[in-house]
Amino acid sequence: MNSIQANEKKNLILRLKRLEGQIRGLQRMVEEDKYCVDILTQIVAAKGALQKVGLKILDDHMHGCVQRAMKEDDIENNEEIINELMTLLAKFSS
Amino acid sequence: MNSIQANEKKNLILRLKRLEGQIRGLQRMVEEDKYCVDILTQIVAAKGALQKVGLKILDDHMHGCVQRAMKEDDIENNEEIINELMTLLAKFSS
Amino acid sequence: MNSIQANEKKNLILRLKRLEGQIRGLQRMVEEDKYCVDILTQIVAAKGALQKVGLKILDDHMHGCVQRAMKEDDIENNEEIINELMTLLAKFSS
Amino acid sequence: MNSIQANEKKNLILRLKRLEGQIRGLQRMVEEDKYCVDILTQIVAAKGALQKVGLKILDDHMHGCVQRAMKEDDIENNEEIINELMTLLAKFSS
Repeated sequence: MNSIQANEKKNLILRLKRLEGQIRGLQRMVEEDKYCVDILTQIVAAKGALQKVGLKILDDHMHGCVQRAMKEDDIENNEEIINELMTLLAKFSS
Repeated sequence: MNSIQANEKKNLILRLKRLEGQIRGLQRMVEEDKYCVDILTQIVAAKGALQKVGLKILDDHMHGCVQRAMKEDDIENNEEIINELMTLLAKFSS
Repeated sequence: MNSIQANEKKNLILRLKRLEGQIRGLQRMVEEDKYCVDILTQIVAAKGALQKVGLKILDDHMHGCVQRAMKEDDIENNEEIINELMTLLAKFSS
Repeated sequence: MNSIQANEKKNLILRLKRLEGQIRGLQRMVEEDKYCVDILTQIVAAKGALQKVGLKILDDHMHGCVQRAMKEDDIENNEEIINELMTLLAKFSS
């Protein structure tokens, strides 16, 4: 169970399919000895696409799971959810 | 033409194939409504893998194209190659 | 008003004073024509220190302001707080 | 000895002095219990300023030290300079 809405699910999978295509394009570029800087430019683009998908899911998580959990009075669970989120954010933002 | 050695080419393509698998795994996770934080953890891993591939290609580019170009006395071309690299690094490191 | 505890406030200010010292050290390094790579290594260290201070304040914000707000039934305000946070995280993690 | 031009030196020190002011501003914000999100927004700005100073020095290093070194036929030294640069870039871009 997560906080991703049905209509967003479709959109996210579409973005991830496009990203899969970008990764296959990178394989082809390496295979065909394309110029390093062109390959690296595509890597930057793929990283950006991945980051955007991540921010979208994070947004859903905040508006959904986190908001919902905080409404409950289970303080221990709330602390856990926030600690889990912070561990993730430390990695996500580095 | 680029600076990637034949034996590294294989290794890079292998890594990119594994990354392609990770992206397909992400699609499945979204499809199957997996927990947001678990999806995000995989996104962080994929970003790290992409960054490593990028640094490897950058390394090849520096040791190859850049080093080779600088040996020539074509100052204009040298400046261009470094400017191109800096434009890339500004994006790559943000 | 924010969510930073009194004892953490001291610790954060201490870290920021140390960071101020690092920035002054950087000025000296540039002034004294130190080797670029050594200056850049110090810049990486300062960026890391800044990121750590940021993550600490973000942690306080999540455990404090965000958690507190979500407990209220002011849905409009909750949405605003999360949107504000996401706008920040998009910048913080890029 | 480095590759920073005299006129750029002034400009870099000016930027670093401004950054020092931003860090002192952050101390004041923490001291005066300003809102976390406002503090974090300033941290994002300071990180951006630091990154820009870093990219400027990297640019000077590439156009100066690196380009100059590559012109020499001391292959061992060239390799060392590029390896040193790559170690730095791996940290700078993460």
